[in-house]
Amino acid sequence: MQHEDLMIFDPTAVKGNWQKVFGNDFPIHLEIGMGKGKFLLEQAMRNPNVNFIGIEKYESVIVVSLDKMAPYKPTNLKVIAMDATNIMEVFSEGEVAKIYLNFSDPWPKKGHTKRRLTSPKFLEIYRTILTNEGEIELKTDNKRFFEYSVLSLFENNWRFCDFSVDLHDGRTDIVTTEYEEKFKAKGMPIYYLKVQKKG
Amino acid sequence: MQHEDLMIFDPTAVKGNWQKVFGNDFPIHLEIGMGKGKFLLEQAMRNPNVNFIGIEKYESVIVVSLDKMAPYKPTNLKVIAMDATNIMEVFSEGEVAKIYLNFSDPWPKKGHTKRRLTSPKFLEIYRTILTNEGEIELKTDNKRFFEYSVLSLFENNWRFCDFSVDLHDGRTDIVTTEYEEKFKAKGMPIYYLKVQKKG
Repeated sequence: MQHEDLMIFDPTAVKGNWQKVFGNDFPIHLEIGMGKGKFLLEQAMRNPNVNFIGIEKYESVIVVSLDKMAPYKPTNLKVIAMDATNIMEVFSEGEVAKIYLNFSDPWPKKGHTKRRLTSPKFLEIYRTILTNEGEIELKTDNKRFFEYSVLSLFENNWRFCDFSVDLHDGRTDIVTTEYEEKFKAKGMPIYYLKVQKKG
Repeated sequence: MQHEDLMIFDPTAVKGNWQKVFGNDFPIHLEIGMGKGKFLLEQAMRNPNVNFIGIEKYESVIVVSLDKMAPYKPTNLKVIAMDATNIMEVFSEGEVAKIYLNFSDPWPKKGHTKRRLTSPKFLEIYRTILTNEGEIELKTDNKRFFEYSVLSLFENNWRFCDFSVDLHDGRTDIVTTEYEEKFKAKGMPIYYLKVQKKG
């Protein structure tokens, strides 16, 4: 498999037609900010009946992820180099079943609130592209980003399904990111939340 | 001041008439499980225009709290020896403006879920005795109790107002309990949530 087979270079051209890209009608899970790709690759290997798409804005990181993914020849995994703000140009209404936000940039300054991936503007985008019972799963080590996200998701009318203030304390079989492994090794808590789009 | 002045020995007799007990119409704040009373006493000293009531089921603990409170002669503080399950016999609909749940017993076993002070049965009681915009403030060091409480409060339709996974990191001027001081000194996180009754 060439690295090129994993990349979608003109994603706006397939908006509304992602099932054709994968050649099946399995649900589509999207990781926004996939980083080096460990989480997405492991999810794809474990769940052959789900199609995974990772978006990442930094091409230097994408290169690392492609090197990691290519040997496994995953057919249910695609990567897009893009910024999250353009998601609506790439996915149609109800085209995505689940969104993963793993260790997103916390943008701690007040003036940068709108850039946080759980700000109201982004939540509206997710609501649009998600299926009716679509979900968001969020993991972070950042207290302030987690607190902001919990309140933002609540205020924007998402249904809380699952919640943890220390994901690796008492739960097993969790697919981790590179970043998460480092935190886990240090015994630092990972904050976790799963929400569902409300009817 | 005698210790007796702080105690209400027949609380069911004043149900619906708590304003008469205090001789004013200030809002009533209730701490369920007041323990040794540091939190409630400090709140009472800081907020002369609020009436505070602490309930506690263990009389041995109440004795300690009364010794602590009596020298300050607080007129806006009363203590009741009772179990939380009997709250409806002591307060009328809408009689309480705020409820504090500080370091409540987590009752970790599944079979004891109903005993947790944030289980649906208790939340219904709180909804009854709280004013229309009444609030609950919850603090705990127990991860599992906090996770349970967040989901229970969400599912039972309370409005999330404030939320922290490490209350003493970045906030100051917090009235603490005896228990909380020990955890704070060790640098362990205190989980915090403030919710409001929905219209």
